[in-house]
Amino acid sequence: MSHVAVLPGDGIGPEVAAQAIRVLDALGIAHSEHAFGGNAILSQGTPLPDDTLAACRAADAVLLAAVGLPELEGRPVRPEQGLLGLRKELGVYANLRPARGDGVDMMIVRELVGGLYFGAKGVREDGTWFDTCEYSRPEVERIARRGFEIARARGGRLTSVDKVNVMHTSRLWRDVVTALGEDDYPDVPLDHALVDSFAMTIVQAPQTIDVVLTENTFGDILSDVAAAVTGGLGLAASASLGDAGPGLFEPVHGSAPQIAGRGIANPAAMLRSVALLLAYGLGRPTEAAALERAVADALEAAPTPDIGGTATTAAFGDAVLRALDATPTL
Amino acid sequence: MSHVAVLPGDGIGPEVAAQAIRVLDALGIAHSEHAFGGNAILSQGTPLPDDTLAACRAADAVLLAAVGLPELEGRPVRPEQGLLGLRKELGVYANLRPARGDGVDMMIVRELVGGLYFGAKGVREDGTWFDTCEYSRPEVERIARRGFEIARARGGRLTSVDKVNVMHTSRLWRDVVTALGEDDYPDVPLDHALVDSFAMTIVQAPQTIDVVLTENTFGDILSDVAAAVTGGLGLAASASLGDAGPGLFEPVHGSAPQIAGRGIANPAAMLRSVALLLAYGLGRPTEAAALERAVADALEAAPTPDIGGTATTAAFGDAVLRALDATPTL
Ligand SMILES: CC(C)[C@H](C(=O)O)[C@@H](O)C(=O)O
Ligand SMILES: CC(C)[C@H](C(=O)O)[C@@H](O)C(=O)O
Repeated sequence: MSHVAVLPGDGIGPEVAAQAIRVLDALGIAHSEHAFGGNAILSQGTPLPDDTLAACRAADAVLLAAVGLPELEGRPVRPEQGLLGLRKELGVYANLRPARGDGVDMMIVRELVGGLYFGAKGVREDGTWFDTCEYSRPEVERIARRGFEIARARGGRLTSVDKVNVMHTSRLWRDVVTALGEDDYPDVPLDHALVDSFAMTIVQAPQTIDVVLTENTFGDILSDVAAAVTGGLGLAASASLGDAGPGLFEPVHGSAPQIAGRGIANPAAMLRSVALLLAYGLGRPTEAAALERAVADALEAAPTPDIGGTATTAAFGDAVLRALDATPTL
Repeated sequence: MSHVAVLPGDGIGPEVAAQAIRVLDALGIAHSEHAFGGNAILSQGTPLPDDTLAACRAADAVLLAAVGLPELEGRPVRPEQGLLGLRKELGVYANLRPARGDGVDMMIVRELVGGLYFGAKGVREDGTWFDTCEYSRPEVERIARRGFEIARARGGRLTSVDKVNVMHTSRLWRDVVTALGEDDYPDVPLDHALVDSFAMTIVQAPQTIDVVLTENTFGDILSDVAAAVTGGLGLAASASLGDAGPGLFEPVHGSAPQIAGRGIANPAAMLRSVALLLAYGLGRPTEAAALERAVADALEAAPTPDIGGTATTAAFGDAVLRALDATPTL
């Protein structure tokens, strides 16, 4: 039987996680909850406690809500270090961020455990602070392969985004992607774009974009632009996958401390993350599609304040469960 | 008497530069043209020939159209190296990118001669490729000071954008900006944002943004997002300033090789760069404002194909000159 490790995290995390747990229960999927992020720092001194990591490794999939606590700003240990550590430990190098709506159906494939986030960083003797963007050929090749596979499965195109006119790592990136395309994916149309002008394309012509392959930091920024264009972070979900072991599923939004505890957070992105978990993590595509439809229904029937409605987080969850219940295939 | 060094560059560069030169002539401003970019690589083997650099240094301001030639793709020497070299040589560390339209009046202040563009880059023995994002305290302080000055002059606010939850250089950035604000600019409201969520804010609520201060690569991407939101690259201009010596004024758009030579490129961004040159480079704010208005008129009267019209590049220039001529203050 499948088991999901749930990490409710900080801020609105536990509130939206509660709705996800109702859905897991409705589908008869076992789960357990574990400390992670700011709360774990406060209670255990580390954002990623050993037993949390062990539970994640043992699970079939990991569902994370959100991390980040304003009261920890400026401290040396940050909740986000737990997130980066978890991604690295699980080896989930491929972060899939779909953006849909209004004729747009885009999939951003972001490299997640390398690049500018994970290279050497520090302060040199001369007082220069630095971060390093680093990639090896195999690191680029495995994420590129994932991008091509996804594009092929959709019968689509791949656009690889870099900054080859300035960055050295982009030369490696472009070479590897081009060679892999020629050798193993000649059937998948490939083009290349520069990150600055591509950011503009996401705003001006998002319907022309299919599958996007890009570096960690670029993907962080571009996927938020894509989310903004297609309806906002409240709706954006993501799946992070490795080659083996459990995937990590999380909404793109943060912990929204300013509205935490009021029961009004929009759980749509979290529930869509459960849909991705069902599809990519547990191989249950029919239930995934049903949940996607149920969330779409609830967005109409029970919108939360962030999208102009008055429904509470729990009322949104009710609407989703009702829609799921009414689905004959389940 | 003022002298402007004009670098027509590649692709549509010479076409839009020709309209800028008509305006300089109309205002009685002396100018000279110099080889730069892809053309200079083809004719002299380097994108930034010594005599071009000398002419730029000797000028009161430098006006650059666009660089980039597709036939040089993949060669070791790139036109963009000339651009990066020129920015560095002139010490123009502050790149100002205004974005206006529809209730939006944003000014992005991008650090231009440091960060990820200028740190060490290469390939290590173990086959890892790398780029380094580097900043020293004085480098951050001078650009932050420029940001505060601009915000103060507008009676506005400053938003400093970083990725402090991941990047080490962002910690330095945030510390320096915060301290400078407290010490020297307590009258200028300051806030901080993360680059990913701020990219979303540019799309969703651009009217809430005033002056933005950010790192080189982040500024590259964010200013294109801002341009997309406020009408596209065809209209976006930029000024790059140091502490002394000539400033560098350029449109944000590229060399658009696909439409080069057809006389249909939109010279609006180039002419707005001339307006910035008049204001920031030569201290002629009245003429700058008149030229801004003339460009706005021409956008109505003689739109080029990229914005849905049929005017040629030269016809657009005609409309600008007519509007300037009709300006009583000049
Ligand atoms: C919280 C932060 C470290 C994280 C990231 O940048 O990866 C978030 O912005 C995201 O996109 O998942
Ligand atoms: C051509 C390129 C090197 C340049 C940059 O990234 O600075 C351009 O995109 C710009 O924004 O001026």
